[in-house]
Amino acid sequence: MSELKNDRFLRALMREPVDMTPVWMMRQAGRYLPEYRNTRAQAGDFLGLCMNPDLACEVTLQPLRRYPLDAAILFSDILTIPDAMGLGLFFEEGEGPRFRKPVRTENDIDVLPVLRPERDLPYVIDAVRLIRRELNGAVPLIGFSGSPWTLATYMVEGGSSKDFRLAKTMLYDRPELMHRLLSLLADAVAAYLNAQIDAGAQAVQIFDTWGGALSDAAYQEFSLAYMRRIVSQLRRESEGRKVPVILFTKGGGQWLEAMADSGCDALGLDWTTNIGQARQRVGSRVALQGNMDPAVLYAGAAAIRAEVGRILASFGPYPGHVFNLGHGITPGVLPEHAGIFIEAVHELSMR
Amino acid sequence: MSELKNDRFLRALMREPVDMTPVWMMRQAGRYLPEYRNTRAQAGDFLGLCMNPDLACEVTLQPLRRYPLDAAILFSDILTIPDAMGLGLFFEEGEGPRFRKPVRTENDIDVLPVLRPERDLPYVIDAVRLIRRELNGAVPLIGFSGSPWTLATYMVEGGSSKDFRLAKTMLYDRPELMHRLLSLLADAVAAYLNAQIDAGAQAVQIFDTWGGALSDAAYQEFSLAYMRRIVSQLRRESEGRKVPVILFTKGGGQWLEAMADSGCDALGLDWTTNIGQARQRVGSRVALQGNMDPAVLYAGAAAIRAEVGRILASFGPYPGHVFNLGHGITPGVLPEHAGIFIEAVHELSMR
Repeated sequence: MSELKNDRFLRALMREPVDMTPVWMMRQAGRYLPEYRNTRAQAGDFLGLCMNPDLACEVTLQPLRRYPLDAAILFSDILTIPDAMGLGLFFEEGEGPRFRKPVRTENDIDVLPVLRPERDLPYVIDAVRLIRRELNGAVPLIGFSGSPWTLATYMVEGGSSKDFRLAKTMLYDRPELMHRLLSLLADAVAAYLNAQIDAGAQAVQIFDTWGGALSDAAYQEFSLAYMRRIVSQLRRESEGRKVPVILFTKGGGQWLEAMADSGCDALGLDWTTNIGQARQRVGSRVALQGNMDPAVLYAGAAAIRAEVGRILASFGPYPGHVFNLGHGITPGVLPEHAGIFIEAVHELSMR
Repeated sequence: MSELKNDRFLRALMREPVDMTPVWMMRQAGRYLPEYRNTRAQAGDFLGLCMNPDLACEVTLQPLRRYPLDAAILFSDILTIPDAMGLGLFFEEGEGPRFRKPVRTENDIDVLPVLRPERDLPYVIDAVRLIRRELNGAVPLIGFSGSPWTLATYMVEGGSSKDFRLAKTMLYDRPELMHRLLSLLADAVAAYLNAQIDAGAQAVQIFDTWGGALSDAAYQEFSLAYMRRIVSQLRRESEGRKVPVILFTKGGGQWLEAMADSGCDALGLDWTTNIGQARQRVGSRVALQGNMDPAVLYAGAAAIRAEVGRILASFGPYPGHVFNLGHGITPGVLPEHAGIFIEAVHELSMR
């Protein structure tokens, strides 16, 4: 593998000093970019894009051609794991993801196969290898997975949900069943992330998109516990270098201390958290990633720069900050505004 | 006015000792009740129900006939204020609320009239008077309003929104304009709540449904500041008794200390907050209201009772707890399950 030319992102995750604050954007390979929309049209649909390593590599690299980003993130979907387990993922135009065979009963769980990523998700692993080759050491590549609880919500509901009625009914009425599903998913996620690391991912992020929908007690028992289990199973070194792990629970700002004790290297923050207070709460245990409201990118250059400056000042002159949005960049943002954001992070953090 | 027979709710809000923990449910007069659906059908539609004091009184009282609730809450909608200001509220079947004339420009704000509740919202004030008479002192009546920021989101977006693109663009690009709108709304809300208090409301709650969509900094400046302004304008005594004020920011668990310093008497908590930790954080400054996940009501009796017991134990043997759900009861809940919940709160808190 070629030597890494820009390791600012990995250094910040390890809380080492950097020349300027590294920055990337969740969903940076996404619909706000016209070139992404073109490639997606070429692929036919979203799933076709995920399942074609050449096209997945192409869209992963697109934002790096436009902006001086400090990391690339594998283009894929969090629902590849349940799909590989036989649930039959599909998307209907204008709708969220759906599964043909949701998981509702003991038997539905019993028949779920043990995931072997190289065999069951070759298109993801091939994409990781290809992206690493094409990146040629420019910036590190981030691998990722959904959290067990987040995957379980889609699997039990059979798709997206507003109130997680079925998943929470299982959690409260049949906790032992939910635990069995989550155990199985935690092991699958660990295997999946390890396969991504073996194929070249240099950091990994666990997206706990729906952990914030749980009560405090349920979050600890049904989401965080399984992320801890994953972290303990991950290969933390590859190519002679530490592979940092980032936990991101959307809406998890009240649980940062517990998350920081999970064994991870960094926490992703959404924009509701005061990043300066968060740094004081977690101390030197972990780095922090975040946390500008993606909606700020709808505003003009002055507002974007002011908000970047405010967040940098709030974090303060300490090591261990990776700048990011507090959630994925939205389709309606003008690409120029993303550029203003990234430039502002670098420029204002160098002072 | 007849003497109050059950003042458990008011006493708990003032952090005085009570024989058992009082309980009510946000949206307790709602679609989960067949009698509500009947009355709503009779009214024609949701707005017709809000605007008819007799029917609004009827649905307010319906849950009290079924359950030993410790408070009634005025049946109304948070969008009555912008409607009275001339924005033209309407609902399309299966859709959220919409406004015919959204507020987007300086001029749109300039032409908004000063709200005079007795003149502009007589149907609400009449409903409060009628409900008080019909309650005949059985339990206290809660009045309410949306928070300025929450109302502003609907007024600027012209309805519901996923990412508050227009409202946040105004907030970041033209903060002075958003401040002008929020100032005007804060004064309108204060007048509205004072009119409800004059008509007989014995406690009031401010619903900050969308404060949790803001960054920490924006929440303090654009939501909490205006709730503080309202609290400072409220008549805090009526009929020789204190009228407690409850602030509820959904998703506001990270901001409890600041909310407790607003001058309010109690904070509403959603279910993501650990209520025991919240009590320690706010100390003796305010009472706490909450905070069971409404989705627990989809589960069976054993799970509901266990969760009630867990929350009571987490709060501990201190004064100042009003039990509630962490958000409104959902339409799919069986009425029997709401009964199990309310009974469990009373029974388990007497031990």
